[in-house]
Amino acid sequence: MDNTQNGEAKEELKASSDGSICGFDSLHRLLKQNLKPQQFQEVSRLLLGLNCGRELDTISLPESVTAVSVEHGFDLQAFSFHADKELLREPRVVRVGLIQNSIALPTTAPFLDQKMAIFKKLKPIIDAAGASGVNILCLQEAWMMPFAFCTREKRWCEFAEPVDGESTQFLQSFALKYNMVIISPILERDINHGEVLWNTAVVIGNHGNVIGKHRKNHIPRVGDFNESTYYMEGNTGHPVFETAYGKIAINICYGRHHPLNWLAFGLNGAEIVFNPSATVGELSEPMWPIEARNAAIANSYFVASINRVGTETFPNPFTSGDGKPAHADFGHFYGSSHFSAPDASCTPSLSRKRDGLIIADMDLNLCRQLKDKWGFRMTARYDLYADTLARYLKPDFEPQVISDPLLHKKTL
Amino acid sequence: MDNTQNGEAKEELKASSDGSICGFDSLHRLLKQNLKPQQFQEVSRLLLGLNCGRELDTISLPESVTAVSVEHGFDLQAFSFHADKELLREPRVVRVGLIQNSIALPTTAPFLDQKMAIFKKLKPIIDAAGASGVNILCLQEAWMMPFAFCTREKRWCEFAEPVDGESTQFLQSFALKYNMVIISPILERDINHGEVLWNTAVVIGNHGNVIGKHRKNHIPRVGDFNESTYYMEGNTGHPVFETAYGKIAINICYGRHHPLNWLAFGLNGAEIVFNPSATVGELSEPMWPIEARNAAIANSYFVASINRVGTETFPNPFTSGDGKPAHADFGHFYGSSHFSAPDASCTPSLSRKRDGLIIADMDLNLCRQLKDKWGFRMTARYDLYADTLARYLKPDFEPQVISDPLLHKKTL
Repeated sequence: MDNTQNGEAKEELKASSDGSICGFDSLHRLLKQNLKPQQFQEVSRLLLGLNCGRELDTISLPESVTAVSVEHGFDLQAFSFHADKELLREPRVVRVGLIQNSIALPTTAPFLDQKMAIFKKLKPIIDAAGASGVNILCLQEAWMMPFAFCTREKRWCEFAEPVDGESTQFLQSFALKYNMVIISPILERDINHGEVLWNTAVVIGNHGNVIGKHRKNHIPRVGDFNESTYYMEGNTGHPVFETAYGKIAINICYGRHHPLNWLAFGLNGAEIVFNPSATVGELSEPMWPIEARNAAIANSYFVASINRVGTETFPNPFTSGDGKPAHADFGHFYGSSHFSAPDASCTPSLSRKRDGLIIADMDLNLCRQLKDKWGFRMTARYDLYADTLARYLKPDFEPQVISDPLLHKKTL
Repeated sequence: MDNTQNGEAKEELKASSDGSICGFDSLHRLLKQNLKPQQFQEVSRLLLGLNCGRELDTISLPESVTAVSVEHGFDLQAFSFHADKELLREPRVVRVGLIQNSIALPTTAPFLDQKMAIFKKLKPIIDAAGASGVNILCLQEAWMMPFAFCTREKRWCEFAEPVDGESTQFLQSFALKYNMVIISPILERDINHGEVLWNTAVVIGNHGNVIGKHRKNHIPRVGDFNESTYYMEGNTGHPVFETAYGKIAINICYGRHHPLNWLAFGLNGAEIVFNPSATVGELSEPMWPIEARNAAIANSYFVASINRVGTETFPNPFTSGDGKPAHADFGHFYGSSHFSAPDASCTPSLSRKRDGLIIADMDLNLCRQLKDKWGFRMTARYDLYADTLARYLKPDFEPQVISDPLLHKKTL
């Protein structure tokens, strides 16, 4: 069965300006088109965590939605995760959608035009999610602007908005119309605290109300991710938002490299953790599926990973601290949005090159089923680690090292 | 270049008694033999974390070693990880070896015969490691016995040995002969503390001396892993052993599912963490590469994963708590031993079906290089998590939950 709703081009490796990075659209499609069916089944068992040669079920979406995806050229994929039937609880199936997109206008266009063009570009994709019956929708990190933090230019701060700003207002109408929870990651300006900036996810309830916000906990200092120039580590802890469709949390971008960040959302009861991101190929692509799936397995919850797509070029060249000449782009944002489940299964990823909407049905009961099966929470020995961390924090911490007493003995 | 030292059969999917589980020998070989070179290069970039189409360098081993691997039918692979040259430090290249093996006699044979047969079987493989110049060698979990904990029969406790028992003595001679650190995971009997059992890794120094031991921190209660019937959670903390060849630690088997366990070894300064395991296909195979690689990435150290191989059948049938009829085997131990590096790269895995020795050269300087590049330790905010864990431990812990005030409002 074809996993793609809107048809798919034959996967071919084309020569591209940056070599291998932009070369292909999707690992899953490349393997599917080039391996024999039985081989692909084996590979899927390992790479997608699908036991017994099962394929992940696909969801049939309305024809109108497929038509919109063709018209607007975005990748559309929809899957259903498996969970066991329970005897004492009804299934709690939630339909979740993730949108990845490139920016809509060159970064040289007037800022207001850029933002409005993104709104306009997203509208049919959000409508497609709504028409598909999506219950919870998440957009990519800082979706309302180019990811300009590579430049270190402060003028991009103008894109920042208060939590109840125009991006939130834009999305509130969709939330209300489609009875849909929407997670909106923005560059936030905190008016009441001296106009400081934060990297923030706003959670909009299915009645169009703002439920709350979460601010990015871990800020990168790697490659061109000069975000620490713009905003500080978040001060909102690890909130879990109890919505009409389950308990959700948001681990923004670089926070996915920190297992403790994933853990804390789990300890607070999250059933789905969203990871809205903006990350580029050379730096992070091999890590991308590893960290998400590990978090889902270790914490017995679903993980929803979103990465923006495309190459963004900025007006003024900048250097990257690598001795190479100044350049004007951030590298290729490789999309590849996908879902990971607590049973170690995962969906294929959206395109590495095109806008996309990926949808998955997930029975939230699966989280507790995996907790009961594997017992990771029960066997975690948190007391040991609370103690380790408390000791580690002390300036005079001494690591537990057992040295070979014969360390400096000469070999015979 | 062929990554296999002793030739490789054409990868074919054969029908096998347990369906897909035993079907193929190695994911890497299957992909390499069935994809076009440019496709395989792209897939490797993502799956092995190799940037820019690089292949992992292979190491040339002595012909005598290759001959031994052919004679004794074990898989032999050897790779070299890349690290940058530094200006103020010399490279610290260490050669590490991992051995996976099936048991040598049926589990119905006299216990002493079984153990001696394993010794005999391992001798040429350990010699091959020594002759290859391996500096640190690690064997699989409870290597000196069948993994009989599925049975819940206490008679298998007879295999337990003190830390200085005959398995240690057997290995000490090799350590001395080859100037090699050897990690020996055994079933330990603690004579001085009431004869209790532990799942323990003994660390033997390159002079043949016992440097110390580590006891498995997390004990599973899943599937047929009835280990909690035999031994308790370890009481040795998270020791890092300072050896002639670097700082090493051992995260035994099920502990790989616990990110905090990996973290604590990292906080104590480990540069290589070994994960000697015994785990079966249906339960854990899709998790296997995910958890190891995530640990290497998140903690900026090398991870060495070892899993035993083969199907072990026991004299008396036992049930699995799944309502199915009693059966006499534990499922297929899928081998697949491999290395993961802090830069997100990894080696291909050893065979899923055969004994094997995998060797890798690793410059331990890479650990600090990745710490400096990504800054995970610096950006980790341990204070936040020490506080979270301390609060979580309290019986009256209340998770940080923000409820939608309109949660129970009817939709219009």
